Amino acid sequence: MTVGILGGMGPLATADFYRKVIDATPAGVDQDHLPVVVWADPTVPDRSAALTGHGPDPTPWLVRGAHRLEALGARVIATPCNTAHAFLDEVRTSVRVPMLDMIAETAAEIRSAHPEVTAVGLLATTGTIRAGLYQRALEAAGLRVVVPGELSQGEAVTGAIRRVKAGDTGPAAARLVERAGEELAVRGAGLLVAGCTELPLVLGGRSAGLPVVDPTAVLARATVREALTVREVPVAAGVL
Amino acid sequence: MTVGILGGMGPLATADFYRKVIDATPAGVDQDHLPVVVWADPTVPDRSAALTGHGPDPTPWLVRGAHRLEALGARVIATPCNTAHAFLDEVRTSVRVPMLDMIAETAAEIRSAHPEVTAVGLLATTGTIRAGLYQRALEAAGLRVVVPGELSQGEAVTGAIRRVKAGDTGPAAARLVERAGEELAVRGAGLLVAGCTELPLVLGGRSAGLPVVDPTAVLARATVREALTVREVPVAAGVL
Repeated sequence: MTVGILGGMGPLATADFYRKVIDATPAGVDQDHLPVVVWADPTVPDRSAALTGHGPDPTPWLVRGAHRLEALGARVIATPCNTAHAFLDEVRTSVRVPMLDMIAETAAEIRSAHPEVTAVGLLATTGTIRAGLYQRALEAAGLRVVVPGELSQGEAVTGAIRRVKAGDTGPAAARLVERAGEELAVRGAGLLVAGCTELPLVLGGRSAGLPVVDPTAVLARATVREALTVREVPVAAGVL
Repeated sequence: MTVGILGGMGPLATADFYRKVIDATPAGVDQDHLPVVVWADPTVPDRSAALTGHGPDPTPWLVRGAHRLEALGARVIATPCNTAHAFLDEVRTSVRVPMLDMIAETAAEIRSAHPEVTAVGLLATTGTIRAGLYQRALEAAGLRVVVPGELSQGEAVTGAIRRVKAGDTGPAAARLVERAGEELAVRGAGLLVAGCTELPLVLGGRSAGLPVVDPTAVLARATVREALTVREVPVAAGVL
């Protein structure tokens, strides 16, 4: 079954996601792998700017990309951008293929893999935090969500994300986001969510003494699961 | 200008190429990056098997992918698979957009970046070697080409490529291909070409005491160069 990747937000995060889909696929030779179509449109207006009232609505760009992927035969669409999920409900109404929910998948993963955790530290764009995407999903699962203070968010987290988007995945970006993570640890977080697809590019499995959950990897595993379990219905079956 | 990537051969090599295109793009924010469409079809029949008379011709799959990329608006197509280049002349006749030549770009790069080298060691699939792709391009540039002996080719090089295609990019694969490189060094090679897109995933900038030229990176730079220099002609200009 062909996987569609609605990407480019940013490009490096899309390449990271595609690599994680490949790594999550049980395959011994090329021909075992999933067919993948990537629509990487970096001209999609800044999602976080739109959510904080400083930029145009990216929905039309996302709808266009989802349409292209559907037309190319994608049977499931993954969107490796957390902030873009604030706009996906509307995009979903414009296509017939299912679009995976990275936020819901991550909340489910935290619940099953970290049952001892009661408070989650959220590292994400200001847009994702303002839209309350993770808060709704995690609080519905009985978890408390801790977000960085305004200064940490504006300088450390946003600064690290900007660096990665500019191609800098060096230790300076990692240190910035680790600083924000330390604040969340002090305030009771039992794990950190790298809730912006740029952040796993500079964070490993642990930061600030806490385990880091990588939603890009969670979405990659969900994508492979869907692609391998949803049976491909041949076109000819429609006439039966 | 939208870049089309005709990929999936194998998937890991395509992800590596996409990452190298991003790294080669001068960009400070998402919106500076090139729009990219990837058609990654891992079901394309084995290119090397076709060239050694052991499998079906992959050309129809490549033509289908190139058509899809053209229909999506790609204005230049890059094919990050050296062996697939043996079939590209026919694919080119079926699309109007230019398809870059990774082999010719690599020969030109070797000539300009390593003018002192007179003999090139070729690490590639058996199909690429049998088809003579690099030999023709490099000998036309006045360079001698050294290829591994049958045993080295069949065990070390093919073995390393198979490992990467199965997802294993560990040191064992690197050691295998380094062994073949040592043989080429002894036989006079002044540099090594990692002439199969799986090989740069396990080789660094040097191996067996020789500099390694990475055609995936060469193709990525050529792709960015073409995408940034070929002026986008607006549709409306057609009526002027």
